[in-house]
Amino acid sequence: MVKLNENYSKLPGSYLFAEVARRTAAFSAANPDADIIKLGIGDVTLPLPEACVAALKRAADEMADKATFMGYGPYEGYDFLREAIVANDYEPFGVKISPDELFVSDGAKSDCGNIGDIFSEDCTVAVCDPVYPVYIDANAMSGRAGDWDGEKWTNIVYMPCTPENGFFPALPERVPDLIYLCFPNNPTGMAATREQLQPWVDYANEHGSVILYDAAYRAYMTDPALPRSIYEIPGAEKCAIEFGSFSKTAGFTGTRCGWTVIPRALVRGGESLYDMWMRRQSTKFNGTAYVIQRAAEATYSPEGKAQIAKMIGYYMENARVIRSGLSAAGLEVYGGTDSPYIWFRAPHGAGSWEFFDRLLSEAGVVTTPGEGFGPSGEGFIRVTAFGDAGRTREAVERIKGIL
Amino acid sequence: MVKLNENYSKLPGSYLFAEVARRTAAFSAANPDADIIKLGIGDVTLPLPEACVAALKRAADEMADKATFMGYGPYEGYDFLREAIVANDYEPFGVKISPDELFVSDGAKSDCGNIGDIFSEDCTVAVCDPVYPVYIDANAMSGRAGDWDGEKWTNIVYMPCTPENGFFPALPERVPDLIYLCFPNNPTGMAATREQLQPWVDYANEHGSVILYDAAYRAYMTDPALPRSIYEIPGAEKCAIEFGSFSKTAGFTGTRCGWTVIPRALVRGGESLYDMWMRRQSTKFNGTAYVIQRAAEATYSPEGKAQIAKMIGYYMENARVIRSGLSAAGLEVYGGTDSPYIWFRAPHGAGSWEFFDRLLSEAGVVTTPGEGFGPSGEGFIRVTAFGDAGRTREAVERIKGIL
Repeated sequence: MVKLNENYSKLPGSYLFAEVARRTAAFSAANPDADIIKLGIGDVTLPLPEACVAALKRAADEMADKATFMGYGPYEGYDFLREAIVANDYEPFGVKISPDELFVSDGAKSDCGNIGDIFSEDCTVAVCDPVYPVYIDANAMSGRAGDWDGEKWTNIVYMPCTPENGFFPALPERVPDLIYLCFPNNPTGMAATREQLQPWVDYANEHGSVILYDAAYRAYMTDPALPRSIYEIPGAEKCAIEFGSFSKTAGFTGTRCGWTVIPRALVRGGESLYDMWMRRQSTKFNGTAYVIQRAAEATYSPEGKAQIAKMIGYYMENARVIRSGLSAAGLEVYGGTDSPYIWFRAPHGAGSWEFFDRLLSEAGVVTTPGEGFGPSGEGFIRVTAFGDAGRTREAVERIKGIL
Repeated sequence: MVKLNENYSKLPGSYLFAEVARRTAAFSAANPDADIIKLGIGDVTLPLPEACVAALKRAADEMADKATFMGYGPYEGYDFLREAIVANDYEPFGVKISPDELFVSDGAKSDCGNIGDIFSEDCTVAVCDPVYPVYIDANAMSGRAGDWDGEKWTNIVYMPCTPENGFFPALPERVPDLIYLCFPNNPTGMAATREQLQPWVDYANEHGSVILYDAAYRAYMTDPALPRSIYEIPGAEKCAIEFGSFSKTAGFTGTRCGWTVIPRALVRGGESLYDMWMRRQSTKFNGTAYVIQRAAEATYSPEGKAQIAKMIGYYMENARVIRSGLSAAGLEVYGGTDSPYIWFRAPHGAGSWEFFDRLLSEAGVVTTPGEGFGPSGEGFIRVTAFGDAGRTREAVERIKGIL
């Protein structure tokens, strides 16, 4: 009899967004005329930039001609895209990453999950609390999380991020092998400064840990003093893997393209982590579609950059509307200045799910309960800036109306 | 100090196709005027079918409009594509698979590699010998292969496929938990009959094993009596996972789309393997690009089907030319009638790499040495039918000239 991966049976049943969808559907069924505004799931709503659409169609035409047809591509992605990413997302910030240290993929989520393949199952994992659930679930599936006690995993090092510490984790007492950091953060919407990140890089180098840095929301940073990449922090090239994504930057959530940087200097026990990931990708992955890589490349064209700046401006105006509206209404609001996420405390000590239900039933607004991101998210609500501008303004007015 | 996955260090260094590329590059460097014909790697050369290109461009236009823009899609793929696959690749063959038993992915290679995630690392794996290297390497990375002894992995059950058994494996004495089968086969080019497959399905059901059936080359079967899917074999829905691909069927090697079928009836120890794979995919994958799924759907349109039939006819004429030419020259030739691969024995007892080098240096033809696919491939050569028709004819003439 085949033996299954027993770690799967330890996973708690209900996934956060599935439960949000279930409660929303139940409310809709009971109130068929209700006009619901969804600010819950972090999906974008504006169309793909015209430059990307044009590039996609040009690449499709190339595929139609035997002379320009593209078959299997490089496992690590085409040079044209790797070079464009480095030239635009690293060099301008003084980061010396080579295109040969970068892998193109079908999205940061795949890489954040699969990167565990190259590490031992005995590694200790640290995550911020609250946290994007994928980091934990992927490690739980590999047996690194221990057991689920109903609120936490027994072997995960949870690092609380609360108003008290500015939503930035303290260095843990128990030294983790793998440290997931995500800034600007999902769900809290807070960005990290150089001064905050430097001790983490030093700590990882001192202990031989590896930082897994999710920079998927970097395009939303407005403060020029904030580091766009972990590699802006001296020493990070010896201890950090960074994930990037076109999903939120350029509306690629349904088009699927991201990247992972593994510096050549990142070596543990004499092994190059770049070489290990190359082996993993060449065995279990066959590259990202050529036409998609051409669409991603177009995000760096002059037209693409202008269209993306406009798109991000649109979402950040939503963020401003949410942030200022809820603040003016007396709520305790975080994020939303360097991030598309706004994180606020439910009023009058209400619980996350309790206030989620009120927002749904009384205001017709779908949000995400902070508790779903971890124990330290209890009492908070996440709202995203990715909605329609008019609907977002209306949602804010409705929320104010029930406070 | 972070601990790495130690299984990676057990992997033998040189990957087959990398070594083929190295020797080819070395020959080219030494003979810059040599006119080399490549029949080695199994990549296609004809352009994407026009119907797929048109669908890709239509979908790109949808992405350009806020009203039709597509963000995150279902982890398991869009219903339009799942329904099209079932309606065209299963129902006509009498297979009762529901669209709700099928996952769309970025390619069969990803799924063949990642499927191991849902099984225990203690599972015993059986593979045909010779075999597509990904099955073994992916399991070696998870610790299921044991140690590499220079020729074989100590814990892998190798099932020799040779002229003596018609290139179809005998049921092994040691019962494996996971059984990889690929028909039409890569590299031998041989298809399997219902009568050959039925005992394997019965065996897997008797022992609780799971068959991982790679049907990536199904479109090349010409004999109508041959089963296109493992699910044509009674009982397979209780023991088999099947991988399908648009790569070779429709020239999608660089466009990336495939699928995996996990029947709801496939349950082990009370656990649904469909549910486990859904959990895996929803955690470590974010779906295949919408525009790519629309391109794949177009393979099933009347125009798409006609274009694909013409494309496969072109490649199969290459296969006929290779097969008949080499046979007429006195070589012992297999495959090529229901598969795009031709497998032949090197003449005069030559070794695989020895004859590979002769074909390269004397005929200027790049092939793949059979030894690279496993010990039972020693003495054989694989040639693919995916080249240009004129160049393929010339390659055959050149090979005949050096025999």
